Amino acid sequence: MSSTPYVQLEQEWRRLHAFHGALSLLRWDAAVMMPKGSADVRGEQLAALETEYHALLTTPKITRLLDRAQANSQGLEDWQLANLHEMRRQRDYAIATPVSLISRLARATSRAEVHWAEARRQNNFDLFAPHLEEVVHLVRDKAALLGQALGLPPYDALVDEFSPGISAADIDTIFKALSRRLPSLIRETLTLQAQRPSLPLTGKFAPGKQRALVIEVMRSIGFPFDRGRIDESEHPFTEGVSGDIRITTRFDSADLFSGLLGAMHETGHAMYDLGLPQAWRDQPVGRDRGMALEESQSLLLEMIVGRSRAFVQYLRPLLEKHFAVSGAEWEPDNLYRRLNNVQRSLIRVDADEVTYPLHILLRYELEKKLLSGELAVRELPEAWNAGMEQRLEVRPSGAADGCLQDIHWALGSFGYFPSYALGAVIAAQLWESLRSHLPEIEQQIARGEFGGLFGWLREHVHGLGAKVTVKELMKDATGQPLSATALLRYLDNKYLEAAP
Amino acid sequence: MSSTPYVQLEQEWRRLHAFHGALSLLRWDAAVMMPKGSADVRGEQLAALETEYHALLTTPKITRLLDRAQANSQGLEDWQLANLHEMRRQRDYAIATPVSLISRLARATSRAEVHWAEARRQNNFDLFAPHLEEVVHLVRDKAALLGQALGLPPYDALVDEFSPGISAADIDTIFKALSRRLPSLIRETLTLQAQRPSLPLTGKFAPGKQRALVIEVMRSIGFPFDRGRIDESEHPFTEGVSGDIRITTRFDSADLFSGLLGAMHETGHAMYDLGLPQAWRDQPVGRDRGMALEESQSLLLEMIVGRSRAFVQYLRPLLEKHFAVSGAEWEPDNLYRRLNNVQRSLIRVDADEVTYPLHILLRYELEKKLLSGELAVRELPEAWNAGMEQRLEVRPSGAADGCLQDIHWALGSFGYFPSYALGAVIAAQLWESLRSHLPEIEQQIARGEFGGLFGWLREHVHGLGAKVTVKELMKDATGQPLSATALLRYLDNKYLEAAP
Repeated sequence: MSSTPYVQLEQEWRRLHAFHGALSLLRWDAAVMMPKGSADVRGEQLAALETEYHALLTTPKITRLLDRAQANSQGLEDWQLANLHEMRRQRDYAIATPVSLISRLARATSRAEVHWAEARRQNNFDLFAPHLEEVVHLVRDKAALLGQALGLPPYDALVDEFSPGISAADIDTIFKALSRRLPSLIRETLTLQAQRPSLPLTGKFAPGKQRALVIEVMRSIGFPFDRGRIDESEHPFTEGVSGDIRITTRFDSADLFSGLLGAMHETGHAMYDLGLPQAWRDQPVGRDRGMALEESQSLLLEMIVGRSRAFVQYLRPLLEKHFAVSGAEWEPDNLYRRLNNVQRSLIRVDADEVTYPLHILLRYELEKKLLSGELAVRELPEAWNAGMEQRLEVRPSGAADGCLQDIHWALGSFGYFPSYALGAVIAAQLWESLRSHLPEIEQQIARGEFGGLFGWLREHVHGLGAKVTVKELMKDATGQPLSATALLRYLDNKYLEAAP
Repeated sequence: MSSTPYVQLEQEWRRLHAFHGALSLLRWDAAVMMPKGSADVRGEQLAALETEYHALLTTPKITRLLDRAQANSQGLEDWQLANLHEMRRQRDYAIATPVSLISRLARATSRAEVHWAEARRQNNFDLFAPHLEEVVHLVRDKAALLGQALGLPPYDALVDEFSPGISAADIDTIFKALSRRLPSLIRETLTLQAQRPSLPLTGKFAPGKQRALVIEVMRSIGFPFDRGRIDESEHPFTEGVSGDIRITTRFDSADLFSGLLGAMHETGHAMYDLGLPQAWRDQPVGRDRGMALEESQSLLLEMIVGRSRAFVQYLRPLLEKHFAVSGAEWEPDNLYRRLNNVQRSLIRVDADEVTYPLHILLRYELEKKLLSGELAVRELPEAWNAGMEQRLEVRPSGAADGCLQDIHWALGSFGYFPSYALGAVIAAQLWESLRSHLPEIEQQIARGEFGGLFGWLREHVHGLGAKVTVKELMKDATGQPLSATALLRYLDNKYLEAAP
């Protein structure tokens, strides 16, 4: 008895999902557990499994089954139709780029990554420039091929791979709104902030104690330690599949909050992944809905919840319990102000939520110009510095705290940066809707109760998987189309009307 | 330009090796790091990768390439011919058993494992019997098919899979010699031992400190921590590939030696795997030469070296340093006697090196009878108990410390047990030869210098990979054919002539 083409496709994707999970574990282990001398061996394992994954996804059998399933789609349920759509999407992306280009890109980015690190260490862009040029050239080819195959403009095709269903035009509209309001908002915020300076938080905070605090907070949040772990790594990240999620953070003994907020950020990702629909967990429709939505979940927890007055109220006794802190600087009011301190700064990952989008706007503008050829790689440092001056009124002293600060372009990740700012936009819009539906949400958080928050998110975001587009999801969850309005309203209220 | 069939085969095996390493990491992680609730997800990943591995190994393309490479083997170097032989061997084993039988066996053993654990907990063999019957039935089919394909008697085919080139007739000869001498040797040893009782080692030994001791010992031994790790798990094991080896042990705070000797045992495996020829590390000829040789390397380090007077001399100051022990019971002489205490006991894994082979002889005899049908599964407990009385003069109180103590049969591992006793035989024969070539070896070990030991092993054992058979290796390394003589001489000397 042979099963239907659709059922066979589900079976194929079950296998692909298992490969996907194995690859994720290999990456997690490489960053967290692997002995340093085993990098070559791991590289070979990753390459072999990735190649096999790609081969399984692009075999003619899959195309044939997709065609037959689509021709016989009557009788399929909604989620199955959505699943079929996502299967086709994954296959289209995989098949649009020839294997030869993928492996050239893999080699080029692996070289570029090494030289990027060295160039950054030496604060010397020239060491990186030829490698970035090679990567830009190959990504340009890839974007053209993807665009052709998907019927999209080249840059849109790159964005769409990371954040499906979002176009450069959508980004332009949103970023325009941000760029119109943020500069003046920053000025006004800084003026108000200067009138009420906050006290610095000094001290030594043993990593072991920070870890205990983080675990207690994660338990309150509802992170299921029987299906996940937290460890330490050089850069915080989330890996795994919805049945086995692994997050990391890093602890700085001079800074009580960087490890905690790093863990909160990753816990936001993890709760999204853990909340994906279990019934579809090995199918494309059961996966997350792209990087913009992923980032919205991490920023919602780290930035909006984790730096709220309510959260500070919940956190204050825990700080006392774990670190026996006392004094005026540890009063909730001062903590809140420290956590929400705004400044014009050079480094994206250290930026506050008011200035952060401007860091992204700059990268978005520059990466589009690099790909179109309007900007040459050698002109990048000056374009970067000029852009920082114009947008944030600060000028990098060199490439290390300028255009060399991020690894993304070295890795060939063009079209990825927008998802950070879109994530902030989505998070604020979801939060606004959530607050109007759950007026008691802040009292709950202040008591360390996160069930209301994640119940709402599970219903309106996590539990949908990839069944609807981000735009549909936002319309359904908030009653409004995706726009920058809620973020600007949120920032305006937080930093001006209810200024800390 | 197309490469030769042989070169293409090397390429195919490079990929298989990467899969093999990924599978090994998935198993390591499951035992050491994985959250408990993620077992199902991991099971799916393992099954998918194992299925793919099997498919890649049994594809007609491999057979075609093997045939063509063998028809054109002139010009290949010795190691390449050996490699070709090992490739064919792997493929023959993989193809001899139909996928349907493999998956029936996988399901049956996975059920049997669960019921074995429960039956052992309840000390009730009946709970396990029907599942063991199913496994025996399927393994019998597998053995018949393997035997047919390889031109071997069925049981020999099972042994050959674990320990290539060793036949049941070889085992019979060796085991007969052991069974002729060991009973009287045990009696004489126990008589001597009773005349000079040793003092028990009591105390509490914090696992953290035990770990520090183990790591110091492993560093002396030369374990390369840049290509390996040690962690803790319920049962000690070694996983990984030669570029990334992971061992585990477990610490008992009431017993200072179980954790250390467990780690020594696994370090023996690890040093073998790490010493395999690097130039062939992703080829079959670069793999270990089967379980008997593997076990010889772990037993050589744990039993022969780790319980020698020389090692005790090296260890004594470390015990003082890490645990500040003092008193008569911690004097080298008493330590040596405690480490080499002989007793007739029920449990294989706790047995000393004199009685240990008899535990194996019993299992060997019984598993052959189970497979041939001469012994029914329901008769196993009584046959076990009678065998223990006859061989070791002790009788289990129930199945839990009788025929339910080992997991091997539940997992379908028939033909595996002999490798433990063969390992002891090989270890003693290698040690005898090593001592005659390096008369200063014991003084070196007493000083904590292990370079001489591993230099010799690398030259005569580790560095050969799978290029020669175990029998050839033993002839070359020791000048003698593989036999029980050296082990009996070693035991005789250690426990009688130079009795502790």
